[in-house]
Amino acid sequence: MRIRVVNPNTTRAMTDTIEQCAGAVVGPGTLLDAVTSAMGPASIESHYDEALSVPGILDAIARGERDGVDGYVIACFGDPGLDAARELAAGPVIGIAEAAMRAASHLGRGFSIVTTLDRTIGRAEDLAEHYGMRRFCRGIHACEIPVLALDTDPNARKIVTEACREAVEADGSDAIVLGCAGMADLCAHIRAEIGVPVVDGVAAATLTVQSLVTLGLRKSGRGEFAAPPSKTYRGVLRPFGRP
Amino acid sequence: MRIRVVNPNTTRAMTDTIEQCAGAVVGPGTLLDAVTSAMGPASIESHYDEALSVPGILDAIARGERDGVDGYVIACFGDPGLDAARELAAGPVIGIAEAAMRAASHLGRGFSIVTTLDRTIGRAEDLAEHYGMRRFCRGIHACEIPVLALDTDPNARKIVTEACREAVEADGSDAIVLGCAGMADLCAHIRAEIGVPVVDGVAAATLTVQSLVTLGLRKSGRGEFAAPPSKTYRGVLRPFGRP
Amino acid sequence: MRIRVVNPNTTRAMTDTIEQCAGAVVGPGTLLDAVTSAMGPASIESHYDEALSVPGILDAIARGERDGVDGYVIACFGDPGLDAARELAAGPVIGIAEAAMRAASHLGRGFSIVTTLDRTIGRAEDLAEHYGMRRFCRGIHACEIPVLALDTDPNARKIVTEACREAVEADGSDAIVLGCAGMADLCAHIRAEIGVPVVDGVAAATLTVQSLVTLGLRKSGRGEFAAPPSKTYRGVLRPFGRP
Amino acid sequence: MRIRVVNPNTTRAMTDTIEQCAGAVVGPGTLLDAVTSAMGPASIESHYDEALSVPGILDAIARGERDGVDGYVIACFGDPGLDAARELAAGPVIGIAEAAMRAASHLGRGFSIVTTLDRTIGRAEDLAEHYGMRRFCRGIHACEIPVLALDTDPNARKIVTEACREAVEADGSDAIVLGCAGMADLCAHIRAEIGVPVVDGVAAATLTVQSLVTLGLRKSGRGEFAAPPSKTYRGVLRPFGRP
Amino acid sequence: MRIRVVNPNTTRAMTDTIEQCAGAVVGPGTLLDAVTSAMGPASIESHYDEALSVPGILDAIARGERDGVDGYVIACFGDPGLDAARELAAGPVIGIAEAAMRAASHLGRGFSIVTTLDRTIGRAEDLAEHYGMRRFCRGIHACEIPVLALDTDPNARKIVTEACREAVEADGSDAIVLGCAGMADLCAHIRAEIGVPVVDGVAAATLTVQSLVTLGLRKSGRGEFAAPPSKTYRGVLRPFGRP
Amino acid sequence: MRIRVVNPNTTRAMTDTIEQCAGAVVGPGTLLDAVTSAMGPASIESHYDEALSVPGILDAIARGERDGVDGYVIACFGDPGLDAARELAAGPVIGIAEAAMRAASHLGRGFSIVTTLDRTIGRAEDLAEHYGMRRFCRGIHACEIPVLALDTDPNARKIVTEACREAVEADGSDAIVLGCAGMADLCAHIRAEIGVPVVDGVAAATLTVQSLVTLGLRKSGRGEFAAPPSKTYRGVLRPFGRP
Repeated sequence: MRIRVVNPNTTRAMTDTIEQCAGAVVGPGTLLDAVTSAMGPASIESHYDEALSVPGILDAIARGERDGVDGYVIACFGDPGLDAARELAAGPVIGIAEAAMRAASHLGRGFSIVTTLDRTIGRAEDLAEHYGMRRFCRGIHACEIPVLALDTDPNARKIVTEACREAVEADGSDAIVLGCAGMADLCAHIRAEIGVPVVDGVAAATLTVQSLVTLGLRKSGRGEFAAPPSKTYRGVLRPFGRP
Repeated sequence: MRIRVVNPNTTRAMTDTIEQCAGAVVGPGTLLDAVTSAMGPASIESHYDEALSVPGILDAIARGERDGVDGYVIACFGDPGLDAARELAAGPVIGIAEAAMRAASHLGRGFSIVTTLDRTIGRAEDLAEHYGMRRFCRGIHACEIPVLALDTDPNARKIVTEACREAVEADGSDAIVLGCAGMADLCAHIRAEIGVPVVDGVAAATLTVQSLVTLGLRKSGRGEFAAPPSKTYRGVLRPFGRP
Repeated sequence: MRIRVVNPNTTRAMTDTIEQCAGAVVGPGTLLDAVTSAMGPASIESHYDEALSVPGILDAIARGERDGVDGYVIACFGDPGLDAARELAAGPVIGIAEAAMRAASHLGRGFSIVTTLDRTIGRAEDLAEHYGMRRFCRGIHACEIPVLALDTDPNARKIVTEACREAVEADGSDAIVLGCAGMADLCAHIRAEIGVPVVDGVAAATLTVQSLVTLGLRKSGRGEFAAPPSKTYRGVLRPFGRP
Repeated sequence: MRIRVVNPNTTRAMTDTIEQCAGAVVGPGTLLDAVTSAMGPASIESHYDEALSVPGILDAIARGERDGVDGYVIACFGDPGLDAARELAAGPVIGIAEAAMRAASHLGRGFSIVTTLDRTIGRAEDLAEHYGMRRFCRGIHACEIPVLALDTDPNARKIVTEACREAVEADGSDAIVLGCAGMADLCAHIRAEIGVPVVDGVAAATLTVQSLVTLGLRKSGRGEFAAPPSKTYRGVLRPFGRP
Repeated sequence: MRIRVVNPNTTRAMTDTIEQCAGAVVGPGTLLDAVTSAMGPASIESHYDEALSVPGILDAIARGERDGVDGYVIACFGDPGLDAARELAAGPVIGIAEAAMRAASHLGRGFSIVTTLDRTIGRAEDLAEHYGMRRFCRGIHACEIPVLALDTDPNARKIVTEACREAVEADGSDAIVLGCAGMADLCAHIRAEIGVPVVDGVAAATLTVQSLVTLGLRKSGRGEFAAPPSKTYRGVLRPFGRP
Repeated sequence: MRIRVVNPNTTRAMTDTIEQCAGAVVGPGTLLDAVTSAMGPASIESHYDEALSVPGILDAIARGERDGVDGYVIACFGDPGLDAARELAAGPVIGIAEAAMRAASHLGRGFSIVTTLDRTIGRAEDLAEHYGMRRFCRGIHACEIPVLALDTDPNARKIVTEACREAVEADGSDAIVLGCAGMADLCAHIRAEIGVPVVDGVAAATLTVQSLVTLGLRKSGRGEFAAPPSKTYRGVLRPFGRP
């Protein structure tokens, strides 16, 4: 089984960390790789960044289909381009926000999300609502560390950990959901520090894909998520994976 | 006051019709133009099409900001790129789905949406939910005419009209919402034929923009919809309207 | 086009202010007037006041129909008698609460409402829920200035402004909705002071009516909002506008 | 204990039937009477009728307070004027729609409402939503018998019974809620005919009032439902029960 | 009419208090008794306790059916075993949580629940949601007095009273719902102390049963709540009241 | 890693089938066994059956904790005793309904559930609501094959398959969720026949447990799902796994 994690933040160091975290949890029969999207912003911290990351994601999915990949993870907590990617791919495509929230929903009454910048809270709210997780999502909090600073700011680990501790306290939550793919490698540390379960969406989504592929569950070939109709295009943007 | 309608379906004839419909309703002090997006698919009929229409929309908004445009309409019923566009623009940006549904919500207990292909129903459902219109939206129906055939298929007008009539009957609705910018010019005809109010989102969104600009209402400069942070980019895609 | 604003608070000075605020936003082709309801309480600050303001509103609508009015605004934030008024009028009737909330929903993720007395908060909650605005309405706050004191208390402007500032802070809102027709003339001042968009429902509803009339959108003649059936009446109350 | 049923349909014969149905279920220590509202339409079949029935209801409550009544039932399925009446009365005021829906919610998974005219379905929908009964309310159906014809049309009983039978079948419901005070005397007959529980709101509301009075439960004296503030009034309408 | 209150907390002193509180409110024609469940934990303070209290409840219902009991109250605020008990009993079975919340919903805009241990808050949340009471339930608070200590801790009355006072303040509620059958005898005291209505579910449920029996309302004999099908059993647990 | 599936239907043949289906999907490092509950009904087809299956489930969990089991599946689509089991177990406990619905939510816009008897539909509705899956669950259908007849009735496979085909058609669903553990071995056959993804909750829940254990995710030790407090017990029922 081949699973590919697509990192739409076009920053290779971040992709490497993600690959390590995802690779650590898959079963022995699973080949896991992570790819950096070929176009888009270095990090995703706004609706605008997210919108412009989507063509790169679709390009990566189209390449993956040619490579025989069985399932995909989109490694950005806004789950950008998820519906479009599902039209392109034959196998499952899972966003890290949906996977993380659903995993956390099994761990108690409710979870808190800790995200990067305050301006990303709204998107997480929309996703919690869209995935039916409003009852489980007790609060969404920003730590005000930009995505790329998670890796470079020497205080990042401490600041994120404290934000998680405060979130659990404020919301009376049973678990933390990390609201950024760039926090994947902080997961074990934070759990050890604050003593409640901490869910990293990259690992959670990877195992969700592995489970769906094992179960033989892939979209039906017709209806809303069938392959998109062929179109003529205007401008520099070319369709990906379409004849 | 300058209002610009952005047509993300990159088909000039469709843009012309849209400009005519929007231009017919604005006040004497309003300059209205419609532009065809400079990149993207010829028509939007899938999540994939919608995703790849967004860069063109953002490009058009960035150009509009340089041209001193006061407000924008996005002329596709999926309201693609709406949140990202709001980050870019200083003035209001309105999607035709949100404007049409809110106008229709004033006309009675509930409305039915008539859209093009069956595969687009899901997106309309998501938007109705997202905009708080679930109580008002009594049903969503496809007429199975592709977007561009609305203009070229000699039976299109009749088929759409019958779909509207059946939708009102089936749902017990008080109004019809047309689920595609390409139906704008059918609005008066259908209303005359079936005797219930019919809402075209292009005209409705245009007047919503005109009203908001008249009221001096524009987003606050901080928070989720503030201008997006500057980023480095990878690949052919370039950021629009950002330093 | 003739638009009439009905002020169910039977206080002429308040009607004059309302007329000024509404008149300032309409287009050149629109005749706008405001009328004081011929019966009912001097101001509306309870469910009881609201209930007893409704006959006067219906009377004003019935007179308006005889005068050839094309659309109406009900200038009380409880939107009293809205459904009944829609049965009587051929053209659109818009409440200031629904218009204000829908305008504010275009300005960001969410708004706060600032109302007069604490006891009116419940009604605003019910309306936000009824109009599908719960996701957008982040909080409702009272400033404890009675309706008529808005005009006479020299501290009113300052107190309302501070309540708006605190509401934005407490709720993390993107906009303020003014929860009383008597606050219409404070709108520009508050916006200038607190730096976020402030929505006055009187002006918003007036432009909503103007837009709907321009679009030719009026209720269908059948169903729930058709003209009410004729009845015999008991007591001093006489039916308005019915044979 | 004194309980008064207020019939806002100003038709004495209907009040007599209501009094009989309510009187049949109260305990030996309860004095039950029914009064016909002193002003308003002969029957309530529109939002307009409902709005103009409210002053008469408030007048009846004000008189009841002077007579030492302990609690009230409003005998119209639209629950008109309920919030205003609660401000006026010291003891409980219960609408027949809320009482009937809550009683029916104990009888199984869900109920169907059978109402008079099709145009009244919308109001019942609003109330089911408002009272939190959406999960329980499986459908609302009209039998197209006008309110006063329930008493005079020789086929009424049969038509309503058949409408109830079809509603149970169509919705898979466990119980019927009768959607009009004028159906109170049909309750036992329908239950016998269709073999599922049938709830008459007049009797249900009467026992809800009796229970609340027995439990000593009455609104707190402060907040939203405190006595309404005193006001000056314009026009023929005079405030009821206020100094 | 015979009504039986089943106390699934297997503590006789608690049952005596419950019997006294319930007996004080029934009408002269009602025979009321309370029974202690024949198996299960001494008090219910966890999902685990609740689960293991259910067989005892069903046994008590089965005995009640043989004794000709007309309706039942389950005297634990988690409403354990309610759906199963409804399958067994011919007459109504009412939980104290549902009865208390529905009674409180008539008293104003919203209520606060005050329960025993913090770990029971989640169950109360689930029930409020399940019964459609989310709009009415403004907050759920623990006083951290264990169930049996309500009777033995000399400070219990004071602590619960203060928790109620603080809940009303924090939530802006119109009423208190007592979240434990063991608080039934504190009801009058707390109401006198804090001046808002206080609902004891034991008394409220008893009168709900009495009302439903008076109205002749019992489940229909078919569908989800029909008598459960006969089964063979494994282990020490024997089916109750089934052939 | 040790995972145990608890079959609360006390029928050994059914447990064997379940063990085979679950064992077929786990990774090489996972030891999977299935146990038949030591007490309770032979099959679960009512709220009553479900209630009486819970003590056996808790007994099995308590034994599993002594055996060093890392996580559990409860193999009945009503997810009986889930919250109580979570209090007892240190590792994850997953119900087949929650796992199946969450897996299906990744496969498209919505799924249909096909269950055994009509009387079990209500429980599935409650769970869909409770798990936030209402948007995804498009319909619940019964095939009227009793649980144990799934194994013995020669027409069962055909009847269930046809019920699935009709459900997809009627609801416009993207996937089927099998509403009974006894249908686990029909999964591949039905998928092949009707051409849409079919989710068996037993396999889905098993992989959910495996994923959570791999991720190191287990409940926090405090709060609602902490180990239940110790109690004295009355009657034949003894507490399981508690000192």
